[in-house]
Amino acid sequence: MPDEFDLIAQLRQRAETRAPVEIGIGDDAAVLHHPHPTREVVTTDMLMDGVDFRWGEAPPELIGRKCLAVNLSDLAAMGARPTAAFVSVALPRTFPGQQIERMFQGLFDLAEEFEVVIAGGDTNSWDGPLVVSITAMGDVTEHGAVLRSGARPGDSIYVTGACGGSLQGRHLTFTPRVREALWLQHQFPLHAMIDISDGFAADLHHILDESGVGAIISGEIVPVHADIPSDWSAEQRLTAALSDGEDFELLFTTPVSDLPNSCLNAHPQTPITKVGVVTAEPGCWLRSESSGLAPLPKLGWKHALG
Amino acid sequence: MPDEFDLIAQLRQRAETRAPVEIGIGDDAAVLHHPHPTREVVTTDMLMDGVDFRWGEAPPELIGRKCLAVNLSDLAAMGARPTAAFVSVALPRTFPGQQIERMFQGLFDLAEEFEVVIAGGDTNSWDGPLVVSITAMGDVTEHGAVLRSGARPGDSIYVTGACGGSLQGRHLTFTPRVREALWLQHQFPLHAMIDISDGFAADLHHILDESGVGAIISGEIVPVHADIPSDWSAEQRLTAALSDGEDFELLFTTPVSDLPNSCLNAHPQTPITKVGVVTAEPGCWLRSESSGLAPLPKLGWKHALG
Repeated sequence: MPDEFDLIAQLRQRAETRAPVEIGIGDDAAVLHHPHPTREVVTTDMLMDGVDFRWGEAPPELIGRKCLAVNLSDLAAMGARPTAAFVSVALPRTFPGQQIERMFQGLFDLAEEFEVVIAGGDTNSWDGPLVVSITAMGDVTEHGAVLRSGARPGDSIYVTGACGGSLQGRHLTFTPRVREALWLQHQFPLHAMIDISDGFAADLHHILDESGVGAIISGEIVPVHADIPSDWSAEQRLTAALSDGEDFELLFTTPVSDLPNSCLNAHPQTPITKVGVVTAEPGCWLRSESSGLAPLPKLGWKHALG
Repeated sequence: MPDEFDLIAQLRQRAETRAPVEIGIGDDAAVLHHPHPTREVVTTDMLMDGVDFRWGEAPPELIGRKCLAVNLSDLAAMGARPTAAFVSVALPRTFPGQQIERMFQGLFDLAEEFEVVIAGGDTNSWDGPLVVSITAMGDVTEHGAVLRSGARPGDSIYVTGACGGSLQGRHLTFTPRVREALWLQHQFPLHAMIDISDGFAADLHHILDESGVGAIISGEIVPVHADIPSDWSAEQRLTAALSDGEDFELLFTTPVSDLPNSCLNAHPQTPITKVGVVTAEPGCWLRSESSGLAPLPKLGWKHALG
């Protein structure tokens, strides 16, 4: 692997410095300039080999990409516009330098796509597995940050895209719903929002717990991703969609109960589906034609691949 | 070890939320409110078991403490006042929950001492060694950020405290020079500053490289820490002081060539020593009475314990 200082020099060359970053890679710390009063959203995610990806089984570019993408997904879930990111790595000494560069390439490419400045980080080498820890920042729009705690009885619950089967490979290639979040916020009031990482049911529970409300989800309507084998039973497919996790779709509530089709299909690659309603009575329920109302537990995924 | 969600709940209970943190632990991301135009300093450090500390050989409190302290030291080196930190961890599944709590205890205690809000993070478990990655933020004072690149020919070079022998244990217990940095900035202009992590010589080179200048250091005056065995030769002791690293003292330059004694000893625990001068001619030299001028190479420590 390349010498630590060589790698920093390379990253420094690649990293652009633009607002809000005034001083980027190369000093003891970065300096961000906020010329106006601002609300800044900050998120951090640590990804580890064998847990969030498997080095050697996926192209290094996709691994680097995912490490940033999950952070951008968190910013999207707050309704924030990403600005800057800090990338810390523990690099196994045995990794070839070229593959490490490819990992950073994938990360920088996604950063460019979403206009994120890589403003700093910490590069280390060791005898353990690869660890990548990223802190990403963004600005809220004039609509403010969208929290988990804002769901109100009577809200409708929507989800972008489709859920389930992400570990087939989509967890490495998904597009964080940054653009969709900004667009949605602009179209109508969002009361609560989360990105689906632990799983549809688990993340819905997070919203309900934080908001002190309940929900009824229409089982037949939950969009099941094509990555889930089509020869599974309807029930198996629904369970996978509700529990698999790593979908990185947006789950949100809004008082608008009937989004016009122009909204639902504004992003052809990212349809929006109404999947349920928020209730004043706590509790999370799944409604299906076959078996009526049944409790929908957290199910969910415990941060471990396969 | 405790369940991930239990641990987050505990941390959330312990973490205060105060300005600039508006939304802390518990949502997809934190929200920081900057009500006025501001320059924000951001730094990040990742520490790994076997590299930056050895789990089982040091009290968990000190390990947690160090992980935050190195970040506060970086903020000090920019002349910034710490405000918030984000803590991500990869916790070995085999670690007893009680020891993990002790680690967080040490970290939170230091955060309180320096009025830092733990505003978020990411908790993970895995089969690898302990990794702690922290991103810390601070505000610059009215004097602005102190960069590595500001050293000017004719500046005097000063260092706080004493150097060398830190791996005897001081690397786990040092106090980040946050107060000293703010105080120094208030007393006189600081042109360039860095905290000594790689080693006195290596970090001096960082200042010289970034500033495009040279330096002459007076070997006899460099403060050698009492942690270096007193029965070593003067040359061995000086080499250790210049190369050991992890001192987390401040190395800075200022146009003020003769700091009054009231400044040099304002902090009895943290004396300040003038160790050299900045030259227009690039190159780094060590002057000693015995051997005159000799090149002072980077020496330094490559981020690996013992």
